[in-house]
Amino acid sequence: MIIVGERINGTRSRVKQAIMAREADFVEEEAQQQAEAGADYIDVNAGTGPDREADDLVWLARTVQAGVSTPVCLDSPNVEALRAGLEACTGKAMLNSASAEEGRMQAVLELAHRHGARVIGLTMDDAGLPKTAEQRIAIAQKLVAKAEEIGIDRDDIFLDPLARAVAVENEQGAAFLDAVSGIRQSLPGVHVICGLSNISFQMPARRLLNRTFLAMAMAQGLDAAILDPLDGGLMAAVCAGRVLLGQDDMCMGYIEAHRAGRLAEWS
Amino acid sequence: MIIVGERINGTRSRVKQAIMAREADFVEEEAQQQAEAGADYIDVNAGTGPDREADDLVWLARTVQAGVSTPVCLDSPNVEALRAGLEACTGKAMLNSASAEEGRMQAVLELAHRHGARVIGLTMDDAGLPKTAEQRIAIAQKLVAKAEEIGIDRDDIFLDPLARAVAVENEQGAAFLDAVSGIRQSLPGVHVICGLSNISFQMPARRLLNRTFLAMAMAQGLDAAILDPLDGGLMAAVCAGRVLLGQDDMCMGYIEAHRAGRLAEWS
Repeated sequence: MIIVGERINGTRSRVKQAIMAREADFVEEEAQQQAEAGADYIDVNAGTGPDREADDLVWLARTVQAGVSTPVCLDSPNVEALRAGLEACTGKAMLNSASAEEGRMQAVLELAHRHGARVIGLTMDDAGLPKTAEQRIAIAQKLVAKAEEIGIDRDDIFLDPLARAVAVENEQGAAFLDAVSGIRQSLPGVHVICGLSNISFQMPARRLLNRTFLAMAMAQGLDAAILDPLDGGLMAAVCAGRVLLGQDDMCMGYIEAHRAGRLAEWS
Repeated sequence: MIIVGERINGTRSRVKQAIMAREADFVEEEAQQQAEAGADYIDVNAGTGPDREADDLVWLARTVQAGVSTPVCLDSPNVEALRAGLEACTGKAMLNSASAEEGRMQAVLELAHRHGARVIGLTMDDAGLPKTAEQRIAIAQKLVAKAEEIGIDRDDIFLDPLARAVAVENEQGAAFLDAVSGIRQSLPGVHVICGLSNISFQMPARRLLNRTFLAMAMAQGLDAAILDPLDGGLMAAVCAGRVLLGQDDMCMGYIEAHRAGRLAEWS
């Protein structure tokens, strides 16, 4: 499992304050804590207005890279902000995100290819968010075809089948899970990623739903997730999932997490 | 999800004591607590010697039925004990278990058919416990072919692909999960069941592994489990899993469990 740490996001008020005041210490510490907790990428999302987002994203990327060696995942709907952010990245970054929308697919994929970055592709197009597994798989195939045409390796493509709220439409959990296994089967070599919080929107006991959903999606082939690595229950589920899928050699990762006291609360 | 409550098992010393002393109150209360916690069947396993097991199983079945209306799952490797237990059952019982071993397959399946009972079929034969998903699926097919030849409906067949310890063989979790989806695809209409505790044998933080494994197996199509319904974390995972698979209409089961305070500790 590849973990993208989601905490440095300007929609969190404390992060927004840090961006506005250029509090590098706060951002560096958020990055360090996530890296120590197991993040493979540190997502940075400025969440500021179009007049300043590119500058903010560059500052966030530079600040994170000053604090940790973990690569950055640049998170913005704004292609120009992604472009500016990439110029500030020294390692192999990730872009969050492309989609199959006209004007966004080509531009973001070309940007990723030019900089050798990995890229998240959301399975949505100009018709909006898909409802069924089949629609998600069809958009995934379109995204991968375009990415390969541009020259991006499958190992650099992370498809996000977009979890939608089960409280709104009861069948959306199953549709997402079917999409994960469908993408795995029809597009070997790509990664499948998701954010977790949408699934439990408007539900009580959300962390239980998010954690259970992550385990179920891992069983279907999800191999990356955008999450808060400081959520101990979620990381304990990742740790257990790795063991149960045979991805934890000799179960040593799990045993070490247990010895470090990171599993006790969740067992 | 069909829940088989596993607590009335003579290998637990307190249960053994109750069997020896014919403490009906204790057994009735164990049955009632499991039924209230969501058990659809109450498993009874005497775990006593061959000279008295049939008598003990009959007493357990009668005692459980005096306390709850939930049907009984008769649990014994001894065909004669199952036969005696069935005579004491008034409703549609479940037999735990048949296997594809010579002498056990035919006898237990015929017994189930004669009494209209449901039956658990372990995917093992005279060669022992299978290692791979393919071996499990092949034995499952043999069991279902024999059961149908005898006249048992698929809806009365519960196949258990037998979870084996990941601590001993790292790949056994994935092999089990692949077997669940393989059985679902190749044998539509049958149920897939499992016991949970073997998977985490010799590992620390076992309840975390068991709970995560249950969620993963539900995603692959597991629709029944033999477990302790008084394990709040396990039942919370079942509750979340039902929502995420679209099996909880309007999410009402989850919302009610939340209101009753059964999820708070696990979120």
